[in-house]
Amino acid sequence: MSQSLIERYLTTRQQSVQFCEPLAVEDHGLQAAEFVSPPKWHLAHTTWFFETFILKPFAAGYQPLDPRYEYLFNSYYNGVGPQFPRAQRGLLSRPTVKEVIEYRQHVDEAMLRLLRNPELPEVETVMQRCTLGIEHEMQHQELFFTDLKYSLFINPLCPTYSATKTPADQAPITLTWLEFPGGLHEIGHAGDSFAFDNETPRHKVYVEPYLLANRLVTNGEYQAFIDDGGYERPDLWLADGWQTRQRHNWQAPHYWLQQDGEPLEYTLHGLRRRNALQPVCHISGYEADAYARWADARLPTEQEWELSAATFSGQQAITGQGPACGCFHPSTAIAADGLLQLYSDCWQWTQSAYSPYPGFRPAAGAIGEYNGKFMSNQWVLRGGSCVSQPAQLRPSYRNFFYPADRWQFSGLRLAKTPGQIQG
Amino acid sequence: MSQSLIERYLTTRQQSVQFCEPLAVEDHGLQAAEFVSPPKWHLAHTTWFFETFILKPFAAGYQPLDPRYEYLFNSYYNGVGPQFPRAQRGLLSRPTVKEVIEYRQHVDEAMLRLLRNPELPEVETVMQRCTLGIEHEMQHQELFFTDLKYSLFINPLCPTYSATKTPADQAPITLTWLEFPGGLHEIGHAGDSFAFDNETPRHKVYVEPYLLANRLVTNGEYQAFIDDGGYERPDLWLADGWQTRQRHNWQAPHYWLQQDGEPLEYTLHGLRRRNALQPVCHISGYEADAYARWADARLPTEQEWELSAATFSGQQAITGQGPACGCFHPSTAIAADGLLQLYSDCWQWTQSAYSPYPGFRPAAGAIGEYNGKFMSNQWVLRGGSCVSQPAQLRPSYRNFFYPADRWQFSGLRLAKTPGQIQG
Amino acid sequence: MSQSLIERYLTTRQQSVQFCEPLAVEDHGLQAAEFVSPPKWHLAHTTWFFETFILKPFAAGYQPLDPRYEYLFNSYYNGVGPQFPRAQRGLLSRPTVKEVIEYRQHVDEAMLRLLRNPELPEVETVMQRCTLGIEHEMQHQELFFTDLKYSLFINPLCPTYSATKTPADQAPITLTWLEFPGGLHEIGHAGDSFAFDNETPRHKVYVEPYLLANRLVTNGEYQAFIDDGGYERPDLWLADGWQTRQRHNWQAPHYWLQQDGEPLEYTLHGLRRRNALQPVCHISGYEADAYARWADARLPTEQEWELSAATFSGQQAITGQGPACGCFHPSTAIAADGLLQLYSDCWQWTQSAYSPYPGFRPAAGAIGEYNGKFMSNQWVLRGGSCVSQPAQLRPSYRNFFYPADRWQFSGLRLAKTPGQIQG
Amino acid sequence: MSQSLIERYLTTRQQSVQFCEPLAVEDHGLQAAEFVSPPKWHLAHTTWFFETFILKPFAAGYQPLDPRYEYLFNSYYNGVGPQFPRAQRGLLSRPTVKEVIEYRQHVDEAMLRLLRNPELPEVETVMQRCTLGIEHEMQHQELFFTDLKYSLFINPLCPTYSATKTPADQAPITLTWLEFPGGLHEIGHAGDSFAFDNETPRHKVYVEPYLLANRLVTNGEYQAFIDDGGYERPDLWLADGWQTRQRHNWQAPHYWLQQDGEPLEYTLHGLRRRNALQPVCHISGYEADAYARWADARLPTEQEWELSAATFSGQQAITGQGPACGCFHPSTAIAADGLLQLYSDCWQWTQSAYSPYPGFRPAAGAIGEYNGKFMSNQWVLRGGSCVSQPAQLRPSYRNFFYPADRWQFSGLRLAKTPGQIQG
Repeated sequence: MSQSLIERYLTTRQQSVQFCEPLAVEDHGLQAAEFVSPPKWHLAHTTWFFETFILKPFAAGYQPLDPRYEYLFNSYYNGVGPQFPRAQRGLLSRPTVKEVIEYRQHVDEAMLRLLRNPELPEVETVMQRCTLGIEHEMQHQELFFTDLKYSLFINPLCPTYSATKTPADQAPITLTWLEFPGGLHEIGHAGDSFAFDNETPRHKVYVEPYLLANRLVTNGEYQAFIDDGGYERPDLWLADGWQTRQRHNWQAPHYWLQQDGEPLEYTLHGLRRRNALQPVCHISGYEADAYARWADARLPTEQEWELSAATFSGQQAITGQGPACGCFHPSTAIAADGLLQLYSDCWQWTQSAYSPYPGFRPAAGAIGEYNGKFMSNQWVLRGGSCVSQPAQLRPSYRNFFYPADRWQFSGLRLAKTPGQIQG
Repeated sequence: MSQSLIERYLTTRQQSVQFCEPLAVEDHGLQAAEFVSPPKWHLAHTTWFFETFILKPFAAGYQPLDPRYEYLFNSYYNGVGPQFPRAQRGLLSRPTVKEVIEYRQHVDEAMLRLLRNPELPEVETVMQRCTLGIEHEMQHQELFFTDLKYSLFINPLCPTYSATKTPADQAPITLTWLEFPGGLHEIGHAGDSFAFDNETPRHKVYVEPYLLANRLVTNGEYQAFIDDGGYERPDLWLADGWQTRQRHNWQAPHYWLQQDGEPLEYTLHGLRRRNALQPVCHISGYEADAYARWADARLPTEQEWELSAATFSGQQAITGQGPACGCFHPSTAIAADGLLQLYSDCWQWTQSAYSPYPGFRPAAGAIGEYNGKFMSNQWVLRGGSCVSQPAQLRPSYRNFFYPADRWQFSGLRLAKTPGQIQG
Repeated sequence: MSQSLIERYLTTRQQSVQFCEPLAVEDHGLQAAEFVSPPKWHLAHTTWFFETFILKPFAAGYQPLDPRYEYLFNSYYNGVGPQFPRAQRGLLSRPTVKEVIEYRQHVDEAMLRLLRNPELPEVETVMQRCTLGIEHEMQHQELFFTDLKYSLFINPLCPTYSATKTPADQAPITLTWLEFPGGLHEIGHAGDSFAFDNETPRHKVYVEPYLLANRLVTNGEYQAFIDDGGYERPDLWLADGWQTRQRHNWQAPHYWLQQDGEPLEYTLHGLRRRNALQPVCHISGYEADAYARWADARLPTEQEWELSAATFSGQQAITGQGPACGCFHPSTAIAADGLLQLYSDCWQWTQSAYSPYPGFRPAAGAIGEYNGKFMSNQWVLRGGSCVSQPAQLRPSYRNFFYPADRWQFSGLRLAKTPGQIQG
Repeated sequence: MSQSLIERYLTTRQQSVQFCEPLAVEDHGLQAAEFVSPPKWHLAHTTWFFETFILKPFAAGYQPLDPRYEYLFNSYYNGVGPQFPRAQRGLLSRPTVKEVIEYRQHVDEAMLRLLRNPELPEVETVMQRCTLGIEHEMQHQELFFTDLKYSLFINPLCPTYSATKTPADQAPITLTWLEFPGGLHEIGHAGDSFAFDNETPRHKVYVEPYLLANRLVTNGEYQAFIDDGGYERPDLWLADGWQTRQRHNWQAPHYWLQQDGEPLEYTLHGLRRRNALQPVCHISGYEADAYARWADARLPTEQEWELSAATFSGQQAITGQGPACGCFHPSTAIAADGLLQLYSDCWQWTQSAYSPYPGFRPAAGAIGEYNGKFMSNQWVLRGGSCVSQPAQLRPSYRNFFYPADRWQFSGLRLAKTPGQIQG
């Protein structure tokens, strides 16, 4: 088995544990909403993935540490069996953190024995699944941060995950429009490198000419939308969006607070003054769409985003360091040409519903439930965020959430159709 | 003003009232769910549309019969003002049916005075809005039937709307696959005739080659899906679909019953034996999608559907007579070449999320709320049904409902990608 | 069979229909909440009661008009069989009003045949049940008014049930306290006249000395409670009451409105100016309790109320004419000695939970479900209201509703313990 | 200050911490329903009680450890201020367990300084409040066990709190009926010893003669009720009880399980075989009431229970050792004369609604919210349970819960009216 795969396995597995180091034992069980999971559950479920899809089918004689974990840590794989109710994951005080770490070690040892076995049959499949397991764990590392932030924020003590200072501010950068030609193009993943099944097959699309903003919308710009009554004008909103805004009484992005007249924002570095130049973050797709309408623009389609990002991918490396660098909040744009803030700050809502590419086929069996069965009612987000693993980001990567979701690091980049004043 | 427009106005207005004739006064107030409206409310709201968008802005000196109706019968136009809560429409015993008919007459008289005024200013806009008002009322005539059916079904007495016999059965027709080439094509409304804004602008799309079934899926075929455990196998369903199926405990299409071992179906002609050759109807998009996956096929995209339907539109007239013919249930397919059952039986779920065409722009003002603001979370249905007004049906017409909705006359036509066995 | 019973039967049956005369056909189906029933349903269910408990068991050869009505119009008698869902009674457009009247006639004819049969076996039981059926129908006549008022109020047109003028105002009457001695007394129904089972058996109770207010609390006094922040001070409320007040955001009694600074009140005579001297009405038990605490008093127990009312029953006749007089709103008190407004204005909340008297035993069979099974979580109200049938009112009558209910004509009379300043 | 009070303070405070010793850190945050609280919250709230009601008003110069705890650990005292939402107590990972222990130490030190201050002004009030705080903490020790059991049971791993063996079985004891005379008696707390305000004032009540069962209903007897269709017969249930049973689909007491045909029960000692001779436990008031009706008996009133228990209190000491003995489950009755199992096994549902005694007055200020504001919709339970502190138990003690509650150690003792066959 490839030595680099084993190394990537070990690095990723260690990093998940390292990300939990600043936590109190008590924090590991936090689950403030059905859609988030406790840190401990992420640690266990990513382990379950390797155990279920690699060790049980391919490691002869493998003995699970506790057979009941198959049920406890199954997320949504009906093909594997029933699942412990999602909304109650925070109620699993046992296994304890220590026992989950032992579970990880148990699985890691068996995985390493397997991966180092020179006579492993079906080595191709095992390598593919191991790669998928690593990518899966990196996705959960990102979810660890978004979920933890959401759960800690419930606490009036506003606990701080990291005391690290965030970088000093840059000079403001004017929003400019980059023009892209229309025509028949190809999108989707190409080549031999890893990609999720939902990025395939690569296929032709026809797009009209379009414009994209060079950078993300900032907190300051978003404040102007609020000040102009953006949250009080149903004409700016999709019907479902307006209903959602009413139900939750949204008045601002999640994590925005006002204390004694001061504009604050909760971050993983604690509660702090809101920075007008940083990208607006933690907005739903509905808010992104309403802002765009207010700004006489629109959200890009995922095709437009990918085609443009691909253009710049040669020239602009995906340089963000991700959560490993210790900064867990989007940064202000740095002066440069081209499309800025593609991958390292906020996911960017598109107007595209998440649906299968022409000819898309999920894998057979339970593992095919990974992406395909979610292809309804969600919207595609493109790019990446400050808590994404940079190794996962590429022009063709498709992230997806419900348009009402706000707990991801989600912002927006504006688009326009040339020669048209948007309604 | 064009005499034919006036005639279409009168015909449509009369037909709405005629459709109510078989009802008891008591039936006019029925509202069995938030998403359906009482017959009386349809009669009033369609009148409100002409009053609000034509009489108030264009008929000098127009006096409303009752100024409070502006609020009572506003459906969802925030630009006009607040709305009486949708879920409580069935609680408006006043105005009575008789008073609503008087309201209709009041508005009709004012409309005719306006339309016959030879010196009407802004005649172009008035004609456009009058045409839209007529189309709007025809859409509500269809909703009248779907809503009424839903509400009557709550009653264990199973009231019958119409005693008319339905046509005798045809011989069964084998499902065959029609091949369509891929390539760069155009879809969307073209020409000067009326179309809704959401059918525009006409634009280029690239499609891969595809196959469409010659006819709709039948009750008999759908029964085989049920018998094969279709409602018990989550692997066949989208995740949101499965959750919806669990929440409502769906076991079969809406209106299917089993009594003393006999398969029954509630129709507007009363409770009757289910016909295996008739198209399956009143299924959600989720069920359509699950059936297609079970049948080793998929739902068509709306682009595929429109391109194929357009091919056959010259050759196959839209011959259905609609509800005026007295038949309120889909029929078995009649032997013929080409794509059968396009417009007269069941709406056909597509896999396409309802979203704006490239360059789409809704009208300015409240009237722009007609279609555009619903472009999220819904799926496109194409074709038409036995209770649609044939005058409204065309290849480019886009109907849209949430994938969980089942109270429309919604069925499905299968699609395939050539050379691929579907997962 | 006693001629007077037959006459009471006929009078009561006719009165139910007469009370519906001012209604539009459309009003007969109104049901604005699960806890109210449509007028038509009251007409049918009271008929069902005679059919189920008298005709079916005792009228040889009786043929029901429609066997399905047994299910449709069963309220809550599990011993009879399952019930059509209560929340959907308003969705039964069929049988129509006309058909329900025919149902009434069908049952009336059979009842008269039975009652006039000189050789009727089990005549004692039939007479008892017929009396119960008449009392039952009178209770539903009262519910007809309370339910109708609730449902009509949903309509922004504020429909008027009756145009009758209400009597002119009296001079204000000072609230004074009447003293009653403690000791060992008896309460509960005594004698041969009709009473509901929950008024029996008569039994001994020991009470401490107490004071009762001579009249009910007025709108003006209640306004002072509101002005003093009564709805904003949790210390005045029971915990469940405060939670209920928060959930529904109560700010005033049901039916109170403020329009252009004017204090209004919806009544069955239409929307009109609120009268400060009339008794406050349509308050929950929680509000009554909070008011009493604010007023340095308390609610009476049902024992106290009954003992005092019995003292005055010789001297003060139950003179109210009830709904037959055409006045459907409580009146201001008229100067007199003793306990005023006992029976003809508002039901009076007591602090007593509705529970069985010592030795209480409900009747055997389904008819035993009449009262006994509701003996939890409800509070007893005593007296009577402007829409009660005077023939039903007496010191021992126990009305009962949940402390959160506000749609009955419910007000309050204060009580005190002598020599004690209430908390 | 009395040395014995200081000792009781210290003992009680230590015991709360000792009861947590078998827990994992992770268990301290468990909250499986809004109505239970996490262990850590109990530790903090009992501390808050001393801080709020004694230290802040009486300890000159007292500095709180963290001023935000006033809000975080306020349970329901509106007079103190707003409260952190009850349903989210389990989401407070901070303060950590260690920090809560430090909070306890901080308050304990200040309390001891205060109690030992020979010149303390208002010493009488401080002693009263200190006594109340100790009694309050003992009540929370009991809640600690009931809440913990409820929350641990969510976990499919069925964690064990204590491995202690439970005592061996006794021989079965026949249920016999003890007769008690009626007449005018007194109930309520008398004398100078501590009692809660809701046990006062002592007052006269008149009761009819009655019978009480010598012991509690057993698991075996309750099984017979189930086997006889007790959960399927609405005629046995109160209407609200039946609705509750339907909503939750109750089929047996909480914690009863069936595995591979074996009757099991979850206890704080783990999952184990159900014992037919032990008292049935964890049933709602509705179930207790339905069982009693099935058994041709009834629930006792709280007056009957107290009068009888008082009779036996001289003769039968309250000998239970409570949770300190390490047994956390009710035991089988031991052969003896008189009323068995009064205090040490299960709380006993009465038919009495929880309401104020004649002349009851809560204390002034926030501390008056302790008991009085809950006097609606709850039922009184009498006696005590295996997890109650024996020091708190006496004939006049009134426990109260909603009749739908099942997570307390609640069982039932039958009552009868002599000479009457119950309905």
